[in-house]
Amino acid sequence: MRLYDQPASGNCLKCRVLLRQLGLPYETVVVDLFRGETRTPDHFARNPDGRVPVLELDDGATIPESGAILLYLAEGTPLLPPDRLARARVHAWMFFEQNQIEATIASARFLAAAGRDRDAPEAFADKVTRGRAALETLERGLADGRPFAAGDAYTVADIALYGYVHCAADAGADPRAHGHVSAWLDRVEGTAGFVNDLAPFPAHVTARPI
Amino acid sequence: MRLYDQPASGNCLKCRVLLRQLGLPYETVVVDLFRGETRTPDHFARNPDGRVPVLELDDGATIPESGAILLYLAEGTPLLPPDRLARARVHAWMFFEQNQIEATIASARFLAAAGRDRDAPEAFADKVTRGRAALETLERGLADGRPFAAGDAYTVADIALYGYVHCAADAGADPRAHGHVSAWLDRVEGTAGFVNDLAPFPAHVTARPI
Repeated sequence: MRLYDQPASGNCLKCRVLLRQLGLPYETVVVDLFRGETRTPDHFARNPDGRVPVLELDDGATIPESGAILLYLAEGTPLLPPDRLARARVHAWMFFEQNQIEATIASARFLAAAGRDRDAPEAFADKVTRGRAALETLERGLADGRPFAAGDAYTVADIALYGYVHCAADAGADPRAHGHVSAWLDRVEGTAGFVNDLAPFPAHVTARPI
Repeated sequence: MRLYDQPASGNCLKCRVLLRQLGLPYETVVVDLFRGETRTPDHFARNPDGRVPVLELDDGATIPESGAILLYLAEGTPLLPPDRLARARVHAWMFFEQNQIEATIASARFLAAAGRDRDAPEAFADKVTRGRAALETLERGLADGRPFAAGDAYTVADIALYGYVHCAADAGADPRAHGHVSAWLDRVEGTAGFVNDLAPFPAHVTARPI
């Protein structure tokens, strides 16, 4: 398999974490989304949304969207329970993550790193406010005392949530300010084979022209 | 089953469309999210994110998030293919929808209806721009000539996308300006038993105090 990857992307990190934890061999093609390399005809053919990650299977079929990649790879493993209701709880957190965490925290984090929060302060503040509210939701969800997002077992929902929750302080939303979230982050990082190799944004993102 | 529902919500519409198309009996509990009725202790127990839709099963278990509800209900039906790769294509469009369509178009549509676009014009414009880009992605995704989002068969991905694409013009992003999207909307609306009963926003949302 081949992962079209960007080391500084939390969405790509999710896929790398799972591939390593499942022990699946894969090769990496780094695509610099920050230079527009994901918005070419070749890459649009892999993902009409022009983003990474994209997983390419050995037969050439491609799967975009980190959530879809996680569910594909985890099928038949302990990281995705077979029970229909248990699976619904995994799905619910994964959709929540894309809607309320990725769409807010990932975007605000990029804007802050690139110095673009100053160009659009109102849009930036809107994302930070919503990101903070999303962390409050996760705190409520974890308040029942179960160790992981979807219940007693570590699943791909935890990997999906981890991607941008662990670095949400970069977007003005400190996850360690929430007790249950903080303990959950530690549990996720303590699972077997967990490696967070999220890279800093490259210099051409953070070096804002004056 | 019981659906905690809001007639004017595109996310709730998705669940109603599927429940009807599958012929599943259910009762409705209308919750006025616009008056804060989804942010009460009772409702937080159903959904820690304090939103609708929520599906309550006969044993009292609850499933939040429209995407998770659609996947739960469609399991074992023709609207969710059993093949692993085919299912990944369904998932990919559903995650895209929550991340790039719901987070932009649904929010902008509400702000415009409530007259709040004037309070936060920059944040509103950001959502409209992103919503338009998301429609361009859907147009690219449908350009291969297949009739539905995930391929030859109508699936829950189409229902998920329909929820806010069909009314995106309310958010300044006209779906009928895109040929493939427009033809796809017609095909979705032509599926057996399809009923779009999205209600207008209630008067207490649109009657902006002066």
